[in-house]
Amino acid sequence: MTAPPEISAPPGRFRISETVRWSDVDLAGIIFYGSYVRFFEVAETELFRAAGLPFSRLFEEFDFWLPRAALHFEFRRPARLDDRLEIEMWVSKTGTSSLRLQFEVYKSAAEPELTAEGHAVLVAVRRGDLKPIPLPVEVVAALGAYRGEAG
Amino acid sequence: MTAPPEISAPPGRFRISETVRWSDVDLAGIIFYGSYVRFFEVAETELFRAAGLPFSRLFEEFDFWLPRAALHFEFRRPARLDDRLEIEMWVSKTGTSSLRLQFEVYKSAAEPELTAEGHAVLVAVRRGDLKPIPLPVEVVAALGAYRGEAG
Amino acid sequence: MTAPPEISAPPGRFRISETVRWSDVDLAGIIFYGSYVRFFEVAETELFRAAGLPFSRLFEEFDFWLPRAALHFEFRRPARLDDRLEIEMWVSKTGTSSLRLQFEVYKSAAEPELTAEGHAVLVAVRRGDLKPIPLPVEVVAALGAYRGEAG
Amino acid sequence: MTAPPEISAPPGRFRISETVRWSDVDLAGIIFYGSYVRFFEVAETELFRAAGLPFSRLFEEFDFWLPRAALHFEFRRPARLDDRLEIEMWVSKTGTSSLRLQFEVYKSAAEPELTAEGHAVLVAVRRGDLKPIPLPVEVVAALGAYRGEAG
Repeated sequence: MTAPPEISAPPGRFRISETVRWSDVDLAGIIFYGSYVRFFEVAETELFRAAGLPFSRLFEEFDFWLPRAALHFEFRRPARLDDRLEIEMWVSKTGTSSLRLQFEVYKSAAEPELTAEGHAVLVAVRRGDLKPIPLPVEVVAALGAYRGEAG
Repeated sequence: MTAPPEISAPPGRFRISETVRWSDVDLAGIIFYGSYVRFFEVAETELFRAAGLPFSRLFEEFDFWLPRAALHFEFRRPARLDDRLEIEMWVSKTGTSSLRLQFEVYKSAAEPELTAEGHAVLVAVRRGDLKPIPLPVEVVAALGAYRGEAG
Repeated sequence: MTAPPEISAPPGRFRISETVRWSDVDLAGIIFYGSYVRFFEVAETELFRAAGLPFSRLFEEFDFWLPRAALHFEFRRPARLDDRLEIEMWVSKTGTSSLRLQFEVYKSAAEPELTAEGHAVLVAVRRGDLKPIPLPVEVVAALGAYRGEAG
Repeated sequence: MTAPPEISAPPGRFRISETVRWSDVDLAGIIFYGSYVRFFEVAETELFRAAGLPFSRLFEEFDFWLPRAALHFEFRRPARLDDRLEIEMWVSKTGTSSLRLQFEVYKSAAEPELTAEGHAVLVAVRRGDLKPIPLPVEVVAALGAYRGEAG
């Protein structure tokens, strides 16, 4: 498999591509809406890794979890088997305990039409009792490169 | 397996219970947010079946599909392994081509605390070109019992 | 939703029914092979629950896990959307640290044709280092009702 | 994300790497056995693509499907969150209508220990009635580079 052509993300955004697989597609011949959870997860995982915070280390080092408070998807255009989707993700909001990850999914590098967009709200909680805690400043700082802003 | 105690849904709502399984739970010991897609799907499938429109017949009879235009979840309280969640679902809005399914998920029949709530917007589209079409009147009528209203 | 007709399992077997849902079916219009993991899990979870050992209690009480050493499926006949599959499961072998769960899946209560069959080998391991440990005698005893034997 | 170091597959084998993600890992802190279906699928999809037969074209061009007759996994060693698994796959047997895909999964490029191995048997069936048909000779030929043999 040759590597996909390197596409540079817009400033302040993280970008990754991922293929629509057989198990992502339903009887109607288009992507199953639930598969966008998978595409969201791929982008989120790799954004944190690119920021120097792979999940396996992040949760150990800061002794917390990042469960979701909300998830919102809008589906614009059906994706199909073997589409190589381009996913852009960035931190669109940072609160005391929470952050919002925004994402946009494009049909392909060549066809910049949205197939879906949305966001998730992540909340920092203490392990054990799952009570909200302030986001570690190191985490906020490490994510600084992905704030979705040009400058 | 003994049947769960029969709980009557509030007027205008459909209600079903479903167990949080091993594969629904993550490393943090709580339900993985993506698993709510599964809980949503169970409730939606059975609501349509209860309305006399099981999907396998619905799509053949009216020659259309019901892809999603939007999906929105808010997560209120973590669910855990073996929780027997109670899911209520109803049609909260009907447009020309679309309908909105609202859902609320409770921790258990005995603990009426919300674990999650949300909605999905479904759009009727013609098979083949996937262009929106008016919702078949028979479908709107059949769903009449689940409009979320008391009287 | 009316309850499915009560089917008694053959002696020594556990039996449960589960519906093939939209997300289980693929572009070819038949069940995706990976969905049998879900059907296997439903049967396994409920078999342990019926034996008085729901997973949430089992793992706490005996402080172990039950990861898999093997999984084997043979697919006999395609299942389709809305099929109400009947799954039979039993303990076909018990070793010092391991047990084998056998399963057979039937098209429906009315059509006793196999859609799939197979087994999984579960190994008792200590939490922490994941080293094999002897199966707790209480667990072996509790599963005694599901040994797949007539007498 | 930096690209993983390029690892050449042994002669006659296809090789790809894929990350263990949050949704692959269970409460026990190790990979959920069902996630190997996903790893199998990634390798299979990309092997066919590397052979010039991406699924979206393969099924259209030859008007058939490739459902499974069997699936067999043996789990050797737990994989964990963020492990970058190396998956090798090859065609270990070709029959008139069927082919067997063998796979081995290694902990990482640096640690050549097996985490899992197994195979699937795929059967060529006509669309419509799903009856077995001979494997198209073009498909057998295209897969020739991945027969698992040295010479």
